[in-house]
Amino acid sequence: MSSDSLKQEITQLGRQARDAAAILAQADTATKNAALSAAAVALRDHRAAILDANAIDLAEAHDKGLAAPLLGRLRLDDKGIAGIAQGLEQVAALPDPIGTVLAEWDRPNGLHIARVRVPLGVIGIIYESRPNVTADAGSLCLKSGNAAILRGGSESFHSSMAIADCLSQGLAAAGLPATAIQLVATTDRDAVGYLLTLTDYIDVIVPRGGKSLIARVAAESRIPVIKHLDGICHVYVDGAADPAMARSVVLNAKMRRVEVCGAAETLLIDRRAIDQAPGLLDVLIAAGCAVRGDATIQALDPRVTAAAEQDWSTEYLDAIISARVVDGVDAAIDHINRFGSHHTDSVVTTDLAVAERFLNRVDSAIVLWNASTQFADGGEFGMGAEIGISTGKIHARGPVGTEQLTSYKYLVRGSGQVRP
Amino acid sequence: MSSDSLKQEITQLGRQARDAAAILAQADTATKNAALSAAAVALRDHRAAILDANAIDLAEAHDKGLAAPLLGRLRLDDKGIAGIAQGLEQVAALPDPIGTVLAEWDRPNGLHIARVRVPLGVIGIIYESRPNVTADAGSLCLKSGNAAILRGGSESFHSSMAIADCLSQGLAAAGLPATAIQLVATTDRDAVGYLLTLTDYIDVIVPRGGKSLIARVAAESRIPVIKHLDGICHVYVDGAADPAMARSVVLNAKMRRVEVCGAAETLLIDRRAIDQAPGLLDVLIAAGCAVRGDATIQALDPRVTAAAEQDWSTEYLDAIISARVVDGVDAAIDHINRFGSHHTDSVVTTDLAVAERFLNRVDSAIVLWNASTQFADGGEFGMGAEIGISTGKIHARGPVGTEQLTSYKYLVRGSGQVRP
Repeated sequence: MSSDSLKQEITQLGRQARDAAAILAQADTATKNAALSAAAVALRDHRAAILDANAIDLAEAHDKGLAAPLLGRLRLDDKGIAGIAQGLEQVAALPDPIGTVLAEWDRPNGLHIARVRVPLGVIGIIYESRPNVTADAGSLCLKSGNAAILRGGSESFHSSMAIADCLSQGLAAAGLPATAIQLVATTDRDAVGYLLTLTDYIDVIVPRGGKSLIARVAAESRIPVIKHLDGICHVYVDGAADPAMARSVVLNAKMRRVEVCGAAETLLIDRRAIDQAPGLLDVLIAAGCAVRGDATIQALDPRVTAAAEQDWSTEYLDAIISARVVDGVDAAIDHINRFGSHHTDSVVTTDLAVAERFLNRVDSAIVLWNASTQFADGGEFGMGAEIGISTGKIHARGPVGTEQLTSYKYLVRGSGQVRP
Repeated sequence: MSSDSLKQEITQLGRQARDAAAILAQADTATKNAALSAAAVALRDHRAAILDANAIDLAEAHDKGLAAPLLGRLRLDDKGIAGIAQGLEQVAALPDPIGTVLAEWDRPNGLHIARVRVPLGVIGIIYESRPNVTADAGSLCLKSGNAAILRGGSESFHSSMAIADCLSQGLAAAGLPATAIQLVATTDRDAVGYLLTLTDYIDVIVPRGGKSLIARVAAESRIPVIKHLDGICHVYVDGAADPAMARSVVLNAKMRRVEVCGAAETLLIDRRAIDQAPGLLDVLIAAGCAVRGDATIQALDPRVTAAAEQDWSTEYLDAIISARVVDGVDAAIDHINRFGSHHTDSVVTTDLAVAERFLNRVDSAIVLWNASTQFADGGEFGMGAEIGISTGKIHARGPVGTEQLTSYKYLVRGSGQVRP
């Protein structure tokens, strides 16, 4: 496709999304839920077509020599499709954030002011080759009254197109514009570049994926970005930590699932808790975790290798943890605020003052006391599904669910007031 | 100054601001208020020095042939300085947004989750040559626990430096870092360009000024921008409007002050209210307002000139209004959403259904019913001072006061919970 016609096509998606957004903003909860339910039905009905599309993607990916974990993310089966359909129904069951009165008050001059939740408008979502994100992201946008423009990874193109088709069918069945959820129908890499310039048509861009994708989007976008950078999460075991709780929280924070953003990457041990260190290292190493320690930690256990400076700012997403001894909670806070990624960090302590200091001073989206960092998840927070976890402070911080995909407006009701 | 050393200097400001922000985030309300009060005292004590600095700016501006309104914005006198000092005390009297628990809940597993308001961090404010903005913007950032980097217009350089010096004295008197509010100490235009690249040190940029300034900042910034674009505000006089109220609201919306962003620029008259049009035109024209109308409006009054297509998207900021007849509330809504700037729009009607339709469907930060658009102001909303009015939907919409200069974090308190 020529760059001109590609640009035109992408602009056209933007225009259609803007038009659809105006309709979606006025859609009631029942209509949006009907679209989600109908899309779930369509997904189940078109199971065979989706699997066929997925087979094409898998064959191409295989020919390209895609690595096994990437192939795994790409692969759909009956259970996977059932899960996607169920996910749509779960989003339908979530409360509708739109129309909520966030605050209201009266002014001395008799004006009544209400701040009311409204959709953002059009959300652009750029993600890697996980076909299920097509439905997850599209459904969260729909529930929050936003139109979505989705751009999935090229390896999942056929699968994503098949899923997006079911979403459009659901929308149409409920009398909503099928263009409320649109997938960019080309694998041309330039399409992303054009999308990121559509400031008139797209209100916010949410990249979902690895560092290089997010870095590219952040660098190129002329549209505001809600981004999720690294998850360099810490557990700090304080001098006043309960040893059994510390072992349990550290083990879970690191090893429950190593590939998630809420997995701990660095263990900080208070010098006063140094006698707990051997036990902590034991449970980690027994679970198959490699430990990279500072000199003190290394001296405690021959299985610990030396941590390099860069380890403190590395997101392993693997069965590896860096470990360091610090002098008390303030040193832990300094380390986290310096080397962390403002994502999720936890303190284990029985000392209330230490806990409060840590909670107040660690500058992260989620700060936990006596709990695993792996709770960093919208579902675990009771927010329903999430589109990601924002490590930025603008607009949304932490899990990005339906509420975070909204804005607000002020409704002012008067009786003829004029300003003196 | 060489571009390298300028870049270094701006980066240094960023580093200092980041360090100051960490301290400010933990400062209690009394300390922040003490800094504001001490700055007010310093302003009054250094009145003569500020007037001397202002005299230098005025002389240079005069030599450059600056237009009279710009000179007027630039000029300070005793009353102006007293007003700035009083403004600082008013910000001290505002509630402190930091630490507020926005929401809290318990999870079935016993985790207690609280969403707590925290500062954004470092705010960059770029404004035109209004010396008072130095104090207004700096004090709002301080009250909301943020460090500020201020870049004022070059014509107000000496005045702004003198005011910023008083703010630093106030900070130091309260034991806070004087670098919590920093003014870029050069008029080099490249300084703005460097500021806009400091993604590691500045969390959000707020431009305050005319279109060209905001357009430049929006185009260049790598940092999220809270922006205030045009204020193309409308009053729609519905068929069911009370005629006296319509005249009063329209006159006030347009003519109370023509240069403010909440001033009405377009009058939409329902065809069913056409008999109200002559009265509306009369009060406007009698008050010195020029009217540019569509053919129907023009035919009603020989003093009305013809509106061109571009009039519907023009922010006059002057005693000029465009006027058009529309077919009912839906046509009014369509016109506003198409030509407006999503700022502030008002409907005058006695028909509740029309009012609710207008309130719900006009996609603007502020939508009023039976009240003047000139209420578009943080102070009039009861929010205290404001740094501007956001026409964007991301992060902040409408008046940007201390609350809008904040983010939040999640504090999760547990008793050893691990994720299954």
